[in-house]
Amino acid sequence: MSTVVKPARILTGITTTGTPHLGNYAGAIGPAIAATQAGDAEYFFFLADYHALIKCQEPERVEHSRLEVAATWLALGLDPQRVCFYRQSDIPEIPELTWLLTCVTAKGLMNRAHAYKAAVQENVDSGDADADKGVTMGLFSYPILMAADILMFNATRVPVGKDQVQHLEMARDIAQRFNYLFGAEFFALPEAVVDEDAAVLAGLDGRKMSKSYNNTIPLFVPAKELKKLVSRIVTNSQMPGEPKDPDSSTLFQLYQAFASPVETAAIRQRYAEGIGWGDMKTVLFEKLDSVLAGPRERYAELIANPAAIERTLQEGAEKARTIAAPFMRELRSAVGLRRLG
Amino acid sequence: MSTVVKPARILTGITTTGTPHLGNYAGAIGPAIAATQAGDAEYFFFLADYHALIKCQEPERVEHSRLEVAATWLALGLDPQRVCFYRQSDIPEIPELTWLLTCVTAKGLMNRAHAYKAAVQENVDSGDADADKGVTMGLFSYPILMAADILMFNATRVPVGKDQVQHLEMARDIAQRFNYLFGAEFFALPEAVVDEDAAVLAGLDGRKMSKSYNNTIPLFVPAKELKKLVSRIVTNSQMPGEPKDPDSSTLFQLYQAFASPVETAAIRQRYAEGIGWGDMKTVLFEKLDSVLAGPRERYAELIANPAAIERTLQEGAEKARTIAAPFMRELRSAVGLRRLG
Repeated sequence: MSTVVKPARILTGITTTGTPHLGNYAGAIGPAIAATQAGDAEYFFFLADYHALIKCQEPERVEHSRLEVAATWLALGLDPQRVCFYRQSDIPEIPELTWLLTCVTAKGLMNRAHAYKAAVQENVDSGDADADKGVTMGLFSYPILMAADILMFNATRVPVGKDQVQHLEMARDIAQRFNYLFGAEFFALPEAVVDEDAAVLAGLDGRKMSKSYNNTIPLFVPAKELKKLVSRIVTNSQMPGEPKDPDSSTLFQLYQAFASPVETAAIRQRYAEGIGWGDMKTVLFEKLDSVLAGPRERYAELIANPAAIERTLQEGAEKARTIAAPFMRELRSAVGLRRLG
Repeated sequence: MSTVVKPARILTGITTTGTPHLGNYAGAIGPAIAATQAGDAEYFFFLADYHALIKCQEPERVEHSRLEVAATWLALGLDPQRVCFYRQSDIPEIPELTWLLTCVTAKGLMNRAHAYKAAVQENVDSGDADADKGVTMGLFSYPILMAADILMFNATRVPVGKDQVQHLEMARDIAQRFNYLFGAEFFALPEAVVDEDAAVLAGLDGRKMSKSYNNTIPLFVPAKELKKLVSRIVTNSQMPGEPKDPDSSTLFQLYQAFASPVETAAIRQRYAEGIGWGDMKTVLFEKLDSVLAGPRERYAELIANPAAIERTLQEGAEKARTIAAPFMRELRSAVGLRRLG
């Protein structure tokens, strides 16, 4: 007797609005790619461009971001041979599954989604008569699309930020409801994987690095521009020679995210010895540049040849659909959408 | 200079739950097929099986109803060469368009849908703490799917019952919003066509013939069964020889729906002369049987060969997709889902 243990299926959606920055790299992209190089799980990475449409009605921005994001992941070493790397909108089974799941999802479940409730609260707080003002059905029902993303591939583990844990619970709810209604274990119940240690980098102004604060350092700006951005990072007014606290220093934190523990220990020592902020900015720039120079070059090559990225994504979609298409046939049959005869 | 006048595009969705009955024929199927034989418009008829999933979680019922409904329309003379006759779930562009439209639809619009509000009212009236009890996202968001059905083919006219007029207005709203956001007249604004004269037949018990009252006469029961059902239609207790009021008589109304005006006038005369209910039941049965015998035979042949119906529907889907697929490419491009390079 032999026991077949299925490998874990790990699925990561990558939003395609905006330009990837150092914070994205340290908090998500870097660890995710490192995991694929080490692990024996099956990895699914997808550009979540149907999701992008919820918030972004600027076609050029959606288009450009898809290119930038795909090029970024490839430049940083995501290997499309080792993982399944595809674009959500190339998988027609996903919107179809979304509808099947829509039919079994209680509206009450969506009413309780944090993102929706926050939007309503904002309207209430501002004294608006319409609690749903500005809320689209995309925002309201996107946990169902997210459930379809996950359940389409029966992903077992989904790395997410804390704010997404609720959506994973919803995906489990929806999966269980479908399994119950149609009498079989069609869907595995996915688990959220929250990396408590994920680095949250500060940006130019010391607040969390985030597009919405306009304080980011994009990953692949030219070296000269990178140097200029690093020079703008805020510091306190301590003088060279004064011992400094590394743990409250944005410069140190950024350095730590890109350096080895040995290198980091050495810089911690230099903080104690009173390294000047100007010198530290040079140290940080050189570290960032040494890590990013190679990927930056690959990124430039990739972005100059979008047709090649398109081919990679098409190959990924084909690979993804070898799973999605037959599974969708099974699900269609389960709900009664069968060929006649 | 020449002016090209586009022919009207008329689209009709056919729900696929339940077995078609005389009321469906007189109120919808008959007039719709007659229109296709007369008109020079482009006609689209589709089996609305994604809609069926909203209310029906019995796969066998969905499956069987699709077969019965398709066979019914074909048996009654719908000519798949003359019209585009397809199954909604064979058009993957429809769920995809549904998602695109979901992203531009205000939740507030769905809040105002009559069907949703009626469900909420029922919960409120029964003192339920959860106003959304039993409401699925399928019920809540189905006007968006209906908009996708219509807008996918840029239908200009949609024959509907009065209860569906609001959904047509919603489809117009959604179309206008999309056109506005993406800067072109992608979608024509569809118009509801309400047939004020559509026959509403009474059923066995004198109430409106409806599946939900369990008082229907199915279209294609064997003659013997049809005779038995006609004999069960309620009448008043007037005796043969007494003059009778045709306009309050279910028997008369059913007869009228299937007979020519001349025939109807003759029967009206016999009511004045005091025709007995037993005789009138014979007259009605014979009329129904003479109209339905031919279609019934074709129906039996069709239903015995589901694979042939499947082929017809696949051909219809192919025809529909010659419109839907290129249009969807255009819409994808409009929102930013473009091929790279």
